Amino acid sequence: MLEPAGAMPQDAWRIDNTPVAAENELLCEVDVLNIDSASFRQLGESCGFDAQRIGERVVEIVSQRGKQHNPVTGSGGMFVGRVLEIGAALRDKVDLSVGDRIASLVSLTLTPLYIERIDAVDVTTGQIWVRGKAILFESALWAHMPSDIDDGVALAVLDVAGAPAQVRRLCSAGQTVVVIGADGKSGLLSCAHAKARVGPHGRVIGLVPDSTTPSARMLLRAGLVDDLVVADARSALEASGQIEALAPQLADVVVNCVNVPGTELCSILCAKDGGTIYFFSMSTSFTAAALGAEGIGRDVTMMIGNGYAKGHADTALQTLRDHPELHAYFNQKYARTRT
Amino acid sequence: MLEPAGAMPQDAWRIDNTPVAAENELLCEVDVLNIDSASFRQLGESCGFDAQRIGERVVEIVSQRGKQHNPVTGSGGMFVGRVLEIGAALRDKVDLSVGDRIASLVSLTLTPLYIERIDAVDVTTGQIWVRGKAILFESALWAHMPSDIDDGVALAVLDVAGAPAQVRRLCSAGQTVVVIGADGKSGLLSCAHAKARVGPHGRVIGLVPDSTTPSARMLLRAGLVDDLVVADARSALEASGQIEALAPQLADVVVNCVNVPGTELCSILCAKDGGTIYFFSMSTSFTAAALGAEGIGRDVTMMIGNGYAKGHADTALQTLRDHPELHAYFNQKYARTRT
Repeated sequence: MLEPAGAMPQDAWRIDNTPVAAENELLCEVDVLNIDSASFRQLGESCGFDAQRIGERVVEIVSQRGKQHNPVTGSGGMFVGRVLEIGAALRDKVDLSVGDRIASLVSLTLTPLYIERIDAVDVTTGQIWVRGKAILFESALWAHMPSDIDDGVALAVLDVAGAPAQVRRLCSAGQTVVVIGADGKSGLLSCAHAKARVGPHGRVIGLVPDSTTPSARMLLRAGLVDDLVVADARSALEASGQIEALAPQLADVVVNCVNVPGTELCSILCAKDGGTIYFFSMSTSFTAAALGAEGIGRDVTMMIGNGYAKGHADTALQTLRDHPELHAYFNQKYARTRT
Repeated sequence: MLEPAGAMPQDAWRIDNTPVAAENELLCEVDVLNIDSASFRQLGESCGFDAQRIGERVVEIVSQRGKQHNPVTGSGGMFVGRVLEIGAALRDKVDLSVGDRIASLVSLTLTPLYIERIDAVDVTTGQIWVRGKAILFESALWAHMPSDIDDGVALAVLDVAGAPAQVRRLCSAGQTVVVIGADGKSGLLSCAHAKARVGPHGRVIGLVPDSTTPSARMLLRAGLVDDLVVADARSALEASGQIEALAPQLADVVVNCVNVPGTELCSILCAKDGGTIYFFSMSTSFTAAALGAEGIGRDVTMMIGNGYAKGHADTALQTLRDHPELHAYFNQKYARTRT
């Protein structure tokens, strides 16, 4: 049951979140919600970054909409949980058993969710420990939780799994790549894949608001970027001017991973004519990007970040196995045992 | 002078529209504004499609913001006018003389505009005859008005010049292409270029709300599409189901040219895995597209329509010369002499 009737689950304002699986659905016990970065930032700002108030707001949204679909940002996140029931029509089709731990790979904006209580809100990571239930439709994507990677870390990585998979496709040897918001989750993974693809004759430049944070320092130390530029991407001319000073030919590929609005023009200004901009940030405004490129007459290809790509979960998790310093950083920041 | 200070002209809420050219600017006398389709539809709906009220609303927006930047849709349009002054620093740089008739190829969302009066609003085309002045910055794009194409027609075509240029790049021989909103200006031009590129072994399917309109009938008659599908693209499952019935392999390229919100999912459902969706519509929601593809696990490349591409004005105008039936349709609908 959707409101309005006939809408698709994501378009619908409210979906039915009765925690009972139809025969082509999975019912899961939910342990952790991983709120997407743009949404969590908005929730945090509107709740004074108070864990309790953020939790109350999430309960309020879910009780109103039947899903964790932030009405301001329009974005969601994902969950980790355990399989409680496998609908009869699915039992022979899916490689799953009751009790398996899985991560959802579809957005919470289209996942029926029922929250019994909030146990904890981690204001630094956007992860929320809950007791609740969720339904996954037959077409929904999910991944087995890996045995060699901490749950909280895997969740953090899987949440942004679209970015590294796309960066692998877009970048090639010898290119100059600029990653805006290089110090966040998706930015870190993007830098690792960009550097692996462009190779020794290419160049990866990370743009960060602060070069003294643990993640920014790790980027340089682990060689995931060649250069770090400290700037506010919302100040388009100033930030892109710094990139141009370092790389006068500008970037073949720009990857936008920020979680604040207003960075479209900076992204466009950093890209050379004929270059590609990959907007992974959910704060991206379609019209600002479309009209921004036209406004400055920059002939660039602008791509909407797709949260899905074939094999994206494996690609994203493998990044940690291939980059021990990156893995250590994620462990320090996101591991469950940390709390 | 911008509000807030330091913002770029498009990001700014209000720009200074004093009709005086700086030494690196052009001052133009404006004859016609061509409001972009998404914006004009919104203006029409909010004004009961009353020409006078639409004109008053445009005057109100321009007096508040210093530019025709629709606060609801975030989009603008373009203008045609005559060069009044060429700033001293530009005189030797540009192929222009005072008195030349030009069309602006940058969005009205970043063009300082001063309106003295509205002469007429054409509710059917979104063209507004005015007496006014506009400033073009040094970096702005413009085109000489062609001598062999009616002014109103050229303006209509130049407004959407990004679409045909991009469709040429994206399509290749033998492909299946779906154009959603095939019967509008950008849709018609896109179909012509898609059909030219995919050739006799490819297929172009136009999706339209009504097959009995003059433009829909012309599409079939002139061979700009192989098939027409009548559906409402906002009903994603029903509309894409019709496309799938015609082309079970789905589309290599989907071009979205509608002027209503809520058609992202239909576009995604029409594209095959590995396909490309070109969102030219300014009604596109970034999050709806990004999360929609993730939600159904469709591995597609989604592109933000760039209003600019090298040579796009010439490409767009040439379409009319190459397709007499298309040219005749545009003449009938958009020629100045018609009014």
